[in-house]
Amino acid sequence: MAWDTERTRRRLLDAATAEFAEHGLAGARVDRIAQAAGVNKERIYQYFGKKDDLFAAVLGTRLRASMDDVPMTGVGAEAVGDYAGRLFDHHLADGVIPRLVFWEGLERGTAPTTDATRASYHEEKLAHFRDLLPGVERETAGELLLTIVSLVNAWPVLGQLDGFLLGGGPDRAAARRQAIVGTATAAARAALERVG
Amino acid sequence: MAWDTERTRRRLLDAATAEFAEHGLAGARVDRIAQAAGVNKERIYQYFGKKDDLFAAVLGTRLRASMDDVPMTGVGAEAVGDYAGRLFDHHLADGVIPRLVFWEGLERGTAPTTDATRASYHEEKLAHFRDLLPGVERETAGELLLTIVSLVNAWPVLGQLDGFLLGGGPDRAAARRQAIVGTATAAARAALERVG
Repeated sequence: MAWDTERTRRRLLDAATAEFAEHGLAGARVDRIAQAAGVNKERIYQYFGKKDDLFAAVLGTRLRASMDDVPMTGVGAEAVGDYAGRLFDHHLADGVIPRLVFWEGLERGTAPTTDATRASYHEEKLAHFRDLLPGVERETAGELLLTIVSLVNAWPVLGQLDGFLLGGGPDRAAARRQAIVGTATAAARAALERVG
Repeated sequence: MAWDTERTRRRLLDAATAEFAEHGLAGARVDRIAQAAGVNKERIYQYFGKKDDLFAAVLGTRLRASMDDVPMTGVGAEAVGDYAGRLFDHHLADGVIPRLVFWEGLERGTAPTTDATRASYHEEKLAHFRDLLPGVERETAGELLLTIVSLVNAWPVLGQLDGFLLGGGPDRAAARRQAIVGTATAAARAALERVG
């Protein structure tokens, strides 16, 4: 019984993830999610609440898993660059997180951030990130993490812009990865130099 | 007569800009645009073609204007940082470009980039940008410009993420600006050092 519940939740989350990634929050249809999961629509409301809450569960679950998949290791500017590169690889292969992050921004940008699960996730992530940058203050590390997250999530989404500026297409990934690693490393080095 | 045509076009573009910025491409309603502009819906198709083409006209017009509003001046890493800061100010005050850029990415990401007006705009912009970075090759300059454009457009959109990592809110703009200027300067310095 508990196992069946867990399996149904998982099927719903998978279907919702695909639906939200494709259509965003306003464009997603709970009917389609229920149908794709082979689950009664009422079950969605029962498990996750309203559509907004389901979106939050989808993104929260996906981000939490990404933290386990992309560990932060080492110390110093090169470790920051290395992390940025592996996060780029992960989010590009994942394909879903970058879209969800920007759908959230566009469609929930002004909503207050009261999601306790998300808050603790970001708190934990920033704490790990600060271990890479000994002596760097919290705000500076937060800005750098936001820079890295912005860049690795933006690239898979901004295909048009990449096309105009640099030719576009999946073959561009290696060069873009290198540019982001270089930028993250240079910014981390500057932050570390400021604290001596 | 020509003046009236121009005024009608302008009213339609303004109404379409507001509608697309708020709702994106799929969510925008041509009916609402026509009503807000006080213009017959048929006129929209007559002037701009289908909804996709109207979106392209809106974004192209807005981006072209931004290039005049934010000139690139000077030479070297500090000039790159200074440009990034002024572009951040402009896009934040504009409020519309960041949303349009990410709607385009999410909703037209895989469409071929065949818009000649947009292509020449980005070509010209990259040529100006390369003047700031003597000796730096085209690809490296293009990556750096893409980094700057990604960062200044992402921040006004990613309010939720900024909230979780750094507290969020409009008061954050000055600190975020400084971080982006610092990142752009550091990345430009690294690019210039590589070419000696």
